Amino acid sequence: MSNSVNKGPLVFSLRLAVPLPSPSDKTADTDRLLQALSAAGYNNVSIPLDIARRLPPELRKNELLKDELLKDDCELALAMGPGERGLKVLDIGERRIYGIALDIGSTTLEASLFDLADGKKIDEKSAGNPQAAFGADVLTRVQLSMMGEYKKIARLLTDGVNRLIVDLCGANDISADNIFALTVAGNTIVSHFFLGLEVNNIPVSPYVPAVNKPMICSAGETGTAINKNAVVYVFPNSGSYVGGDIISGILYCGIHREESPVLFVDVGTNVEITLGCRDWLMVGAGAAGPALEGGIAHIGKRAEPGTISRVKIDKAGHEIKLDVISDIEPAGICGSGLIDLISEMFSAGVIDQAGRFTENAGRIVETDGVKAYLLHKSDQTELFLTEPEIKNFLLSKAAMFSFLYVFVRSVGLTFGDIGKIYVAGALGCGINPISAINIGMLPDVPLERFVQLGNSSLRGAEMLLLNRDLLSEIDGIAAMITYREMNEDSELMSILQGAMFIPHTDPLMLK
Amino acid sequence: MSNSVNKGPLVFSLRLAVPLPSPSDKTADTDRLLQALSAAGYNNVSIPLDIARRLPPELRKNELLKDELLKDDCELALAMGPGERGLKVLDIGERRIYGIALDIGSTTLEASLFDLADGKKIDEKSAGNPQAAFGADVLTRVQLSMMGEYKKIARLLTDGVNRLIVDLCGANDISADNIFALTVAGNTIVSHFFLGLEVNNIPVSPYVPAVNKPMICSAGETGTAINKNAVVYVFPNSGSYVGGDIISGILYCGIHREESPVLFVDVGTNVEITLGCRDWLMVGAGAAGPALEGGIAHIGKRAEPGTISRVKIDKAGHEIKLDVISDIEPAGICGSGLIDLISEMFSAGVIDQAGRFTENAGRIVETDGVKAYLLHKSDQTELFLTEPEIKNFLLSKAAMFSFLYVFVRSVGLTFGDIGKIYVAGALGCGINPISAINIGMLPDVPLERFVQLGNSSLRGAEMLLLNRDLLSEIDGIAAMITYREMNEDSELMSILQGAMFIPHTDPLMLK
Repeated sequence: MSNSVNKGPLVFSLRLAVPLPSPSDKTADTDRLLQALSAAGYNNVSIPLDIARRLPPELRKNELLKDELLKDDCELALAMGPGERGLKVLDIGERRIYGIALDIGSTTLEASLFDLADGKKIDEKSAGNPQAAFGADVLTRVQLSMMGEYKKIARLLTDGVNRLIVDLCGANDISADNIFALTVAGNTIVSHFFLGLEVNNIPVSPYVPAVNKPMICSAGETGTAINKNAVVYVFPNSGSYVGGDIISGILYCGIHREESPVLFVDVGTNVEITLGCRDWLMVGAGAAGPALEGGIAHIGKRAEPGTISRVKIDKAGHEIKLDVISDIEPAGICGSGLIDLISEMFSAGVIDQAGRFTENAGRIVETDGVKAYLLHKSDQTELFLTEPEIKNFLLSKAAMFSFLYVFVRSVGLTFGDIGKIYVAGALGCGINPISAINIGMLPDVPLERFVQLGNSSLRGAEMLLLNRDLLSEIDGIAAMITYREMNEDSELMSILQGAMFIPHTDPLMLK
Repeated sequence: MSNSVNKGPLVFSLRLAVPLPSPSDKTADTDRLLQALSAAGYNNVSIPLDIARRLPPELRKNELLKDELLKDDCELALAMGPGERGLKVLDIGERRIYGIALDIGSTTLEASLFDLADGKKIDEKSAGNPQAAFGADVLTRVQLSMMGEYKKIARLLTDGVNRLIVDLCGANDISADNIFALTVAGNTIVSHFFLGLEVNNIPVSPYVPAVNKPMICSAGETGTAINKNAVVYVFPNSGSYVGGDIISGILYCGIHREESPVLFVDVGTNVEITLGCRDWLMVGAGAAGPALEGGIAHIGKRAEPGTISRVKIDKAGHEIKLDVISDIEPAGICGSGLIDLISEMFSAGVIDQAGRFTENAGRIVETDGVKAYLLHKSDQTELFLTEPEIKNFLLSKAAMFSFLYVFVRSVGLTFGDIGKIYVAGALGCGINPISAINIGMLPDVPLERFVQLGNSSLRGAEMLLLNRDLLSEIDGIAAMITYREMNEDSELMSILQGAMFIPHTDPLMLK
């Protein structure tokens, strides 16, 4: 969505005519390469020792054919990428180069594979973040890290990322050694885990991360199973609460280029809100996510074959229609499916404004003395949503809406003043804005103002993979951000009460 | 001898007050360190990932004592050194840092150990270059490398250097992990071997090295057994024939700062000649060395206990007085001892101008039908020098003198025009200029113009170790050098004939 000039991918291949040495040109090999690069417009290039070791035979591979070919040049293929400062030679010799964009979520890892020669996406895959074994919540993982489990927990992430990469490469018959770029976006804690950086101080006052702008690393340093010289770029964070995933999302939405304020809501385990334009960017975050992600419902599940992604219920709730990923026997429901379900249950009169089952609701069953709505029943499965689960969901949606409300009002705006509302997140198949508005989770503004993004963090990481010019733009975004502490807001609690009803006790607040 | 401003050693330790994080200062740890460095005048500093990983606990080590200490700062100890561009943090935490200067000769490795905190030399050690097992001559080693032995030969050097470092550290009870800098000077071929760079093209037309200015490496990259983050600086070469040892020697002599021309003769396996001043530097080299180094005499030996370093012979040669290193039973003679011996044999009338034994010479023995001069005889040893060995020596001294003569004349100068003649080299205990002039190996100019240097290559490497400001000066020297091809000179052969006599057939040529 950004309209930055694109000079080419983060890592790019280059074919260069390097003059062969001769009695009148005794320049050393590395100097000859640097001169040829400079002539082609690439200055400030560094050549690592291991590349210099491989250079002499590569430069002379056609030497025996020199007279036959009637050439005084050697055609050298190079892979180049950003170094600590300037450019760096990553590889020499003929080969196709690929890149991977990676979003590290607290729950899910998502990666996409690109051919960097033509910029085409080859494939995309996701997997669970294996760190979840040490707590669904990243804070639990930090606590366990402080108790001596750091290495184990960090290692789980490295291994999980490597398995995902191996899968992605294997499925597309590409050697991982041909992957020369990895762009990584994640929250501050997972980014620190990924880089092997200490996480202890991030969630503890005064909330200081080890690093805000990670150094551009090599895959060898991060232990990533791609070419050891590959560029590993981890998006910067802006303090402990605004992670690289948000910055990547802002990049993707292009908020930092907008003339008037737009809103960007990223719903993952946390709800993260960005409000701003090219002049200012304000970010806030709150823990409203687990319920929205489906974590509170016992049938909650991430998007994969067998997950319910969309729900339709007729009046009174007797008939239900489910969209199931891959059209197989359903096994659970994702976050966006859950929003659909609550919205449909409310519209069909199955639940009232407070989330209680109505008198004449259909498909109500009772399990262990608790009333529940039956989504699906077959010989193998019985899927239902209980009344307490609905209550918990409404608490989460109330928290999310209250965050939005307080956030927008705090800069003197109303929802009506906002030109666009980007809704992103790894909530299964993407939030259906109609449902979200219907239950009062998102503000009640004209539908066309909503833009659904899917995983904007991954999309931003992909953008950088294909456009190295965005490196400085990303630094600019990070520098613009102001973080607004949400949980300390006194207004929040009073708003929360009314927001626990569907859509709200005061519909005017939704505008 | 240089009078450059000294800003401090190549790698230096620093004590820095880094503000502790507080609710009003949530700057990330690496940024806080960079800000503190900038405030102390160190800009453009990079922090490698492995240092960032260790930074958070180091910055908070006194946190519990904060109130007691009444301090808002953490005192952080750092080791800093040159990075690819700018400065680099090499280590954090309290420790004394050391550095090693190393001269890699074709035959001998010489290293000196320095305390970088006070700049004092702690010790110096030497060892044979184990590559000699693959040929005394570096050209033989290159030939064998081209035949598939490269890895083995390069490895020998790495291992030899590492053994010398371990010895040097062990003898002084210093952990090799506290060595944070290594400056290395050697000829182009040995420098390439040390860095694992291909040597194949160096001695083959058009004589192109892989690298002229080696990248500043870490010890991890070069496989050197010191701290893995240590800075390894290899002096640049100026083409295939002018190695880092010459450039290091020029730095030490300060030739590039002289107002009028001076001559610098480095006698190792090769004779290397530098002529110049601050406006120009011309270097030439020729293979005249083996004999001078004692390599042709069967009793030739490098300087070590039991080696004859000085010789005095009375008239007619009947009485001989030997200086032996460590005053033990002599086992051989070094290069400078050999020059003394030939000079004394000539002065005492033992040999004539042509190097033949005279009629009435004393101490003449015959072995295997060859006449020889008896240096030493005891129950254990018999040391003698044969007439053919004297002839071979005179051929070498003639080659060396002819090089000097042609070289100096080629720029329109005579020996008399040259203000200083630096004589360096690993020829045992240093050439005695009186003896060298006496036999016509060095020009016959006033004795006070000669400056004896010992191992100037090692001394230059030591200078850099103690003064990082010399980095740019070294690049300046390398850029100034013109190489003059010696062996193609037609005048050389005609000069050589007369120079084979002692001191010369035409004494005027010595002036």
